[in-house]
Amino acid sequence: MEDKEIFMEKLVEIEALIDSEKIVELNEYLTEVHPLDIAEILTELPEGKKQKLFQVLPWELAAKVLDELDSDTFSEILSSLSQGQKKRLLDLMSQDDMVDLLGELSEEKRHEIINLLDIDDAEDIKELLIYEEDTAGGIMTTDFVSLRKDISIYNAIEYLRENAPDAETIYYVYVVDKNGKLAGVISLRELIVSKPTTLVEDIMNENVISVNINDDQEEVAKVVTKYDLLAIPVTDTNGRLRGIITFDDIMDVIEEEATEDIYKFAGTMETEAELYEEDKFFPRVLSSVKARLPWLIVTLFGGVMSATILSRYETTLNSYAAVAFFMPLLTGMGGNVGTQSSTLTVRGLAMGHVEAGKSMKTIFQEMSIGACVGIICSIVVCIVAFFWMGNIKLGMVVGISMAVNMITAATIGTIVPIVFKKFGVDPAVASAPFISTALDITGITIYFTLTTILLLS
Amino acid sequence: MEDKEIFMEKLVEIEALIDSEKIVELNEYLTEVHPLDIAEILTELPEGKKQKLFQVLPWELAAKVLDELDSDTFSEILSSLSQGQKKRLLDLMSQDDMVDLLGELSEEKRHEIINLLDIDDAEDIKELLIYEEDTAGGIMTTDFVSLRKDISIYNAIEYLRENAPDAETIYYVYVVDKNGKLAGVISLRELIVSKPTTLVEDIMNENVISVNINDDQEEVAKVVTKYDLLAIPVTDTNGRLRGIITFDDIMDVIEEEATEDIYKFAGTMETEAELYEEDKFFPRVLSSVKARLPWLIVTLFGGVMSATILSRYETTLNSYAAVAFFMPLLTGMGGNVGTQSSTLTVRGLAMGHVEAGKSMKTIFQEMSIGACVGIICSIVVCIVAFFWMGNIKLGMVVGISMAVNMITAATIGTIVPIVFKKFGVDPAVASAPFISTALDITGITIYFTLTTILLLS
Repeated sequence: MEDKEIFMEKLVEIEALIDSEKIVELNEYLTEVHPLDIAEILTELPEGKKQKLFQVLPWELAAKVLDELDSDTFSEILSSLSQGQKKRLLDLMSQDDMVDLLGELSEEKRHEIINLLDIDDAEDIKELLIYEEDTAGGIMTTDFVSLRKDISIYNAIEYLRENAPDAETIYYVYVVDKNGKLAGVISLRELIVSKPTTLVEDIMNENVISVNINDDQEEVAKVVTKYDLLAIPVTDTNGRLRGIITFDDIMDVIEEEATEDIYKFAGTMETEAELYEEDKFFPRVLSSVKARLPWLIVTLFGGVMSATILSRYETTLNSYAAVAFFMPLLTGMGGNVGTQSSTLTVRGLAMGHVEAGKSMKTIFQEMSIGACVGIICSIVVCIVAFFWMGNIKLGMVVGISMAVNMITAATIGTIVPIVFKKFGVDPAVASAPFISTALDITGITIYFTLTTILLLS
Repeated sequence: MEDKEIFMEKLVEIEALIDSEKIVELNEYLTEVHPLDIAEILTELPEGKKQKLFQVLPWELAAKVLDELDSDTFSEILSSLSQGQKKRLLDLMSQDDMVDLLGELSEEKRHEIINLLDIDDAEDIKELLIYEEDTAGGIMTTDFVSLRKDISIYNAIEYLRENAPDAETIYYVYVVDKNGKLAGVISLRELIVSKPTTLVEDIMNENVISVNINDDQEEVAKVVTKYDLLAIPVTDTNGRLRGIITFDDIMDVIEEEATEDIYKFAGTMETEAELYEEDKFFPRVLSSVKARLPWLIVTLFGGVMSATILSRYETTLNSYAAVAFFMPLLTGMGGNVGTQSSTLTVRGLAMGHVEAGKSMKTIFQEMSIGACVGIICSIVVCIVAFFWMGNIKLGMVVGISMAVNMITAATIGTIVPIVFKKFGVDPAVASAPFISTALDITGITIYFTLTTILLLS
């Protein structure tokens, strides 16, 4: 709320400066604003003013602002520039941000931009565009410096002086052997405090934690978080150093993956997580419908199955209409307790708390929790049913069904994701809608079987 | 899986080295292992061997291992050391990790440890223990160096040489005025490349992004992720620099908050997120029951309300038993579509995608999505009901109820979290169990009202 107000204030001030063509003041004002904020302001400005504002920015800052833009505004701004301006700005941009932007542009625009780059950069960018977006290769940058292990510290520092300003991070420098294989890591601090004649390999740390270029970004995030790394080197299957991933990209991955998990859990495709950026109404609705409908159709047929099962107990329903009254309560409570167990198991599997070897323990634990809450709830409901209906038998049946159903639900909710994981299926498929529909079916079966046996006998 | 094997291999190798008392080899082997891995190995070792292993570690490494231990193993190891050893190790430990560990120990043990510290450190630690665990103050460290803005670069570098080795990060150094107020930031690189006679204030960047000591850790994480910061300074209400928070702590916060959101969403207390570390069976089950039962009891009474409403339609149920068959389908689908909408809204509010000003747009959007999926599902179900029951009227009633119910569910699922947020209630309270129970009630009302009107008229 407060942030929003500060932002609006800045926006108004900048618009006023553009309108009154106070170029010097505008320039001065902008150097005090964070590039990300300038990018946000740029997006909000009307057509003609965007270009005016951008032209005022110094080169370095302009490139940083481009890094932060969404692909629409990016290509809009770019198309208003001369070839020379474009080329210069693209050279200054951060490579991994550029790859992300290019990935979202049309084939044609992408080629146009790549053609403007230096041959080396163009090759790098083309290579990076090949990797899947959610792998180490897809989020790494090749814009880093590495040192040969057989050079002296003096030469290493000289080399860094010349080459580092472009690179994303130089707090840690990775060391390679003559074949380009990752051999170690050295911190800027170690370089500075060591004797200039020492060889890099003598002071480097050989225990460097790295990831493979094809590793899933979730795995990469796990390693980086575990060891609190500022950056992690990426190697190919031959152990050659191919790129690095920095902590800021990892923070984005953690957030992205969490959102995806939450969305999957609610029974919608993870693609919907990206839709919030989509501002147009109809494409947004259409994509959401596409993302959610598959889950709903599956659960719809689950519901039809419930209906089929229920139709078998028509006699019971006709003899005791009161049995139907408690049906939503029974299925609802089963769904709730099952959702709790399945969510904890899915998240536990994702975070590595639930391990394959310990799955029996987890199942037994969740079953016990289900039994405790099931028995407490069944006593409450038994009392309610008895006093309301004045029928002790009905109260007992509802209570017993509730307890059995809740224990079953907790067990199924835990087993399904574990089994999915074992067979290589994403455990998150055991989402809330899926689990509660499955539990509706077991719940109804349990309830009506017990009712028919106990009430009609 | 693979990681696990590597870990077990290391564990076996280390145990063998301890057993054969090969101290030199053990020492050599351990210097190649990451402190975090040593900490994990230490936890797995049997009683006597823990101490043996720990005694072999060099001081610096031993302190790093202590940083990574859980509080039980930490106090176990510590109690086996002499006062002198304890004192030396505690001085070498990272301050924020120590605060976390102390927070988990008993009052008595905490005092014992604090008394071993230097007076300055003890004061800092005591102060840090006061802040709420989930605020900026609770996760910051006071173990950092800052520069006065009125000194020369030469003096600044000298000062850092003397004081920095202890500090958590020196890639960025924060600058304060003579009253200790945060005035700017300067990178290690800028310091090194600037003329030694320049004043710090002349080259520092005055636009430093900071957080308040009382800010919620979620807010801090948002700022750090937005601006991709390596560290963020923490100030008190007078603008004085009180501490810094580094990126590694922020990565933990992002993960912690995501897990909490997912747990809350499934209808269990966020405290349960911390229970996975609890290894004892019964305390774990008991805590889980305590965390989940409140939600279940609330939804239990929701279910009783459903039952009450249903009992009013006893006549309808008695005339058409088939109406009951479709009840789980109706309430289930309402719950699913409502859960989808509420999840997206809750996450959207947390991530800042859904804004207070734009809430009408979000509601309308989700309503439209509900209408689309509702109409598609209702056509399917209408056809199924017609062919199965051979009753066109029943098919129509079920279909219409389904569509109305799904649109209502999507709307309620969106409005409830937004309204909660407006009144300062955590939107995550609109969890899956809560929403689906509420929607059971509306769903049953809609279905039976329509059935009674259309079928019995």
